Amino acid sequence: MSAPQTTRPQSPIGRIPVQDLRPCVDCGARPAKAVVGELVEITATVFREGHDAVNATLVLTRPDGTVEHRLMTCTNPGLDHWVAPIEPEVEGWWRYRVEGWSDPYGTWVHDATIKVKADVDTELMLEEGARVLERAAKEVKRPKAAAAVLATAVKGLRDAAASPLERLDAGLADAVAEELAQRPLREHVSPSAELSLLVERELALAGAWYEIFPRSEGATYDVTEHRWTSGTFRTAAKRLPAIAAMGFDVVYLTPIHPIGQAAKKGPNNTLNARAEDPGSPYAIGSPDGGHDALHPDLGDWEDFDFFVAEAARLGMEVAMDIALQASPDHPWVTTHPELFTTRSDGTIAYAENPPKKYQDIYPLNFDNDPASAYAEVRRVMQVWIDRGVKIFRVDNPHTKPVEFWQWLIQDVGRDHPDVIWLAEAFTKPAMMHTLGKVGFQQSYTYYAWRNTAADLREYVEELAGEASFYMRPSFWPTTHDILTPYMQFGGVAAWKLRAALAATLVPTYGIYTGYELMESVARPGAEEQIDNEKYEYKDRRWADYEPGGPKAGQTLAPYLTRLNEIRREHPSLMWLRNITFHRADDDQVLVFSKRRRVVEESGHSWDDVVLVVANTDPHSTRTTMIHLDMEALGFEPHEGFIAHELITGQEWPWYQDNTVILGPSSEPVHIIHVRRYF
Amino acid sequence: MSAPQTTRPQSPIGRIPVQDLRPCVDCGARPAKAVVGELVEITATVFREGHDAVNATLVLTRPDGTVEHRLMTCTNPGLDHWVAPIEPEVEGWWRYRVEGWSDPYGTWVHDATIKVKADVDTELMLEEGARVLERAAKEVKRPKAAAAVLATAVKGLRDAAASPLERLDAGLADAVAEELAQRPLREHVSPSAELSLLVERELALAGAWYEIFPRSEGATYDVTEHRWTSGTFRTAAKRLPAIAAMGFDVVYLTPIHPIGQAAKKGPNNTLNARAEDPGSPYAIGSPDGGHDALHPDLGDWEDFDFFVAEAARLGMEVAMDIALQASPDHPWVTTHPELFTTRSDGTIAYAENPPKKYQDIYPLNFDNDPASAYAEVRRVMQVWIDRGVKIFRVDNPHTKPVEFWQWLIQDVGRDHPDVIWLAEAFTKPAMMHTLGKVGFQQSYTYYAWRNTAADLREYVEELAGEASFYMRPSFWPTTHDILTPYMQFGGVAAWKLRAALAATLVPTYGIYTGYELMESVARPGAEEQIDNEKYEYKDRRWADYEPGGPKAGQTLAPYLTRLNEIRREHPSLMWLRNITFHRADDDQVLVFSKRRRVVEESGHSWDDVVLVVANTDPHSTRTTMIHLDMEALGFEPHEGFIAHELITGQEWPWYQDNTVILGPSSEPVHIIHVRRYF
Repeated sequence: MSAPQTTRPQSPIGRIPVQDLRPCVDCGARPAKAVVGELVEITATVFREGHDAVNATLVLTRPDGTVEHRLMTCTNPGLDHWVAPIEPEVEGWWRYRVEGWSDPYGTWVHDATIKVKADVDTELMLEEGARVLERAAKEVKRPKAAAAVLATAVKGLRDAAASPLERLDAGLADAVAEELAQRPLREHVSPSAELSLLVERELALAGAWYEIFPRSEGATYDVTEHRWTSGTFRTAAKRLPAIAAMGFDVVYLTPIHPIGQAAKKGPNNTLNARAEDPGSPYAIGSPDGGHDALHPDLGDWEDFDFFVAEAARLGMEVAMDIALQASPDHPWVTTHPELFTTRSDGTIAYAENPPKKYQDIYPLNFDNDPASAYAEVRRVMQVWIDRGVKIFRVDNPHTKPVEFWQWLIQDVGRDHPDVIWLAEAFTKPAMMHTLGKVGFQQSYTYYAWRNTAADLREYVEELAGEASFYMRPSFWPTTHDILTPYMQFGGVAAWKLRAALAATLVPTYGIYTGYELMESVARPGAEEQIDNEKYEYKDRRWADYEPGGPKAGQTLAPYLTRLNEIRREHPSLMWLRNITFHRADDDQVLVFSKRRRVVEESGHSWDDVVLVVANTDPHSTRTTMIHLDMEALGFEPHEGFIAHELITGQEWPWYQDNTVILGPSSEPVHIIHVRRYF
Repeated sequence: MSAPQTTRPQSPIGRIPVQDLRPCVDCGARPAKAVVGELVEITATVFREGHDAVNATLVLTRPDGTVEHRLMTCTNPGLDHWVAPIEPEVEGWWRYRVEGWSDPYGTWVHDATIKVKADVDTELMLEEGARVLERAAKEVKRPKAAAAVLATAVKGLRDAAASPLERLDAGLADAVAEELAQRPLREHVSPSAELSLLVERELALAGAWYEIFPRSEGATYDVTEHRWTSGTFRTAAKRLPAIAAMGFDVVYLTPIHPIGQAAKKGPNNTLNARAEDPGSPYAIGSPDGGHDALHPDLGDWEDFDFFVAEAARLGMEVAMDIALQASPDHPWVTTHPELFTTRSDGTIAYAENPPKKYQDIYPLNFDNDPASAYAEVRRVMQVWIDRGVKIFRVDNPHTKPVEFWQWLIQDVGRDHPDVIWLAEAFTKPAMMHTLGKVGFQQSYTYYAWRNTAADLREYVEELAGEASFYMRPSFWPTTHDILTPYMQFGGVAAWKLRAALAATLVPTYGIYTGYELMESVARPGAEEQIDNEKYEYKDRRWADYEPGGPKAGQTLAPYLTRLNEIRREHPSLMWLRNITFHRADDDQVLVFSKRRRVVEESGHSWDDVVLVVANTDPHSTRTTMIHLDMEALGFEPHEGFIAHELITGQEWPWYQDNTVILGPSSEPVHIIHVRRYF
């Protein structure tokens, strides 16, 4: 008779305990995340009482419902730690659980090997082996050829004419072990809870982004009239080939909607703007329309479609800025008054951080009539999705209800699973992490404020650890809102370094246009650019930096181009969790590597290994020893390798310990392809 | 209209996210544990979008179903970390959840205080305050007097004759704040999942144990006949007053059942025992009976009852050893053959660790007929419970199915919630931890093998951290199976030190009889005592150590007595999670303190603070500076205190940094009562 059951409030542990199944996000309430082809190690603690053999199977259910069983590997017997690596090959909701089980064949192999060799209970052990294999043949369905393998072994185990060791060998034969690894005899099968893995497209994890204000691209200033003419989608599209040539994957547009005139901001965030000032594109909405409309200066729908098509033609996707707030001129003020907060004096509440007021912005209220608010935003999103936009950079998501985003991202994802949302939540960790958990595919991070080697290492180790299963980082050295003192005063070394680290530490990074030109002057008292493009047009005269132009060579465009080339040539840089940090004697020198096993369609496989050495001090050139974890690079400690530096093309014979010289007098960063000698 | 809902496979996050509710064991599948009166800090991460005020309530459900709401405190705004301390006052299954909510009054207090003082929107803010308080009065049921407080505030806020600041003060009045803390106006209330807290009796956490082999207590050797006469429950009971006088709470008996004769072990674990050898009490079962019977040499049921009653009279409880295995003579072999494993040759499988055989022991099999096996063990347990035994020390629980223990402990606990189970699982961490999770109230630990200051600190920090919510440690410097080289060769300093550390690092500790006599000789090649009491009688001639006896003074009994006195006088030592480690310049000196707020029935409260400084090197006296975390002791860094040393009675004026001299030439350990000067 079967055992009586443990009852509530206890929940049964299972005959073979399976504990601590990972990845596990919020106790299984949220999915772990991965992208197509990304390595995910499913791990669990599986153990049993006594000395009999225990084993574990990963049960993987694909989005289409097909189920696969994979034998796990015990990688740490002392901690009973079991692992099964998977690389999910299709998008969608996967499920995984681990089954712990008792392994009669494994038990027999262990005991019989010892006992028969010591001639203890020899006949008994050989007969017990025969019986285990008979059970395995009978209880588990297997092909005829496989059953024959077991039958042969049973016969061999009972072959009185053979020696005990020969008989033992019949039971231990490779063919038997292989068959029982593939179709094991399992007892006391005990399943864990089942968890979810949400697999998304690769761009959700890895991509190079380039941000522009489309109105600046092609804007012209009439020196006699002292007037600007706005750039348009058509003129901005002319910039796309250069962006594509640098190797970017995504071109991100700040808001392109009509801009409110009420309380419009002038240059450098001043009040009392002049009529001809363009205003901030984040003050969305005017009589020309709201979040579902185009700013008339930028062109019409045909122009917008042309821009998106041109980007696609060049191999790029367009990301749009979604800033859910309204200028006092927004059509929603009359069509959807429930989207706003009415104060006790009957006026609409504008944004404020008491006692400061931001009278050009009405925040949205999602609580007055959530159904209407949700539906209206959902309608707006569909307008853009229908025009081919699949990436949204969300401005300040941490000022809207988390549950709204969870619903919106799920609702959009149901019909458009390829849509990617990037959270611009520069806020406290709990909110930032939770936005990732509820659906945002990517998150801006604290990268801009992590400048020392120790801070960078600690931060990336956090991001690449458990957090990597719910929050995918996007590293931006600067944005149109952020220009840290490090970038203001670090010179060329800082601008190279921060781009190179962003491009290699994590799979997704982005730059704000003008990064090439190292625009490092801040508005006094602020950590953002002077004459910020948010409030005015900016004609960067790109042609001046072309060969033969008056500023030829004064651009980092070739450096950025090289970074993106390196990223495309090295798949290890497209993953996050595969990072290892190494030691340097100089505490300002950061050393890390990424390694990825690449299996080509032909079946041929190779290890891609990239090693990055960076001097995080942009002001002085430093000479130091670095000490490599050779195992993490795929070598024995005594081996050497070819260090092929990918920025300069140099090659060096490197070993476990090497000397580097890095800094403003040469290059601040080595990006090294680690190559075997043979 | 309410918001559309997020649907499966996502689970809704809630309007005000509540994340990471703790304590949380196995994602909530198992209860967290505490004992009556023990401090448990319920914590959660609670946050919201935007700038409005957020708040959190702990909802606590007692075993009787009564529900209490307690306002939580945000102790780390940057991490959105909220805390509510509880000290559950009754045993049973408690439940707890956290509700996050939006706090309109809190929002108004924040905004109005800033804005009215800066004269921004003054009328508007005062009117909005009045409206919030009107809502609070209307929407939340409250006593008349409390409603009047709010009504007065509303009137004050609208009092056109008063100044704006006077009107503001009406809304901010202490009485208003207190009323709204007690009966808040809560919006968007969002509950976390509900978790369980299993509250058990205090002895489950804290107690001093003393182990004996009852047959040795009062055993006599006839020198002419060369024969031993066994001790009995009656003679062993004569030892109880001395054990009680040393201050122990629990007297633990090794197995007291009939011992098998088949393959009986002789002295020092030899085979071929003589008929007069008593055999190991762990080889349970003979024609005289099995696990439900008494060894005839020890006496009859009346004698057993007398022993238990005598212990109770002296303020002690009896713990019994439960070793679920059988000698080949056990009645189960015939009455319950399904409890054993039959091999293919028809014989019963004995214990083995191939190629070693333990032919005196048949392990039990719980898989042949689990229902029968479970029922039989349950029946046996009831025999002892019915005779007043409430504590069981389980031998090798890691050799039986974990799910069996889970069921047994739950089934016994349903009728006998005061039963305590101690797991002797000297095995790998996963099994040890899981046995705690499924119900064992206490666990033997790796304490005997943690001898350096660094190892002790690391281990106790692990035990006192998250693990403390499911595994309660019992520290034993030696047992009848364990005599480490440290104890073999450490001399008096080691024996004092290891008892003192066990008695103060964790709330439950135990010693094996003879510890007083520092029995440090091991069987050659083994890390256990020579002439082990498992296989023979041992007459320790306790009277010889009494004053006037030939070995007077050659005992640690007074030291152990003092340790137990100190434990009884200092409630801080009865808790586990209240430990703080401090620094010493000498890395072999361990420094830690325990602190507990004690509230007496009168309402008077005081802080009990004990500081322990120990030289873990028993071979050399060491002089070193120690550096105290004064805040952890309840002082400012610049303050001083009276260090009252409780072993020697000395008193010193101590500060943040102090010099200590500890080791074999004086005392190895200071146990200090930290007292304020005033």
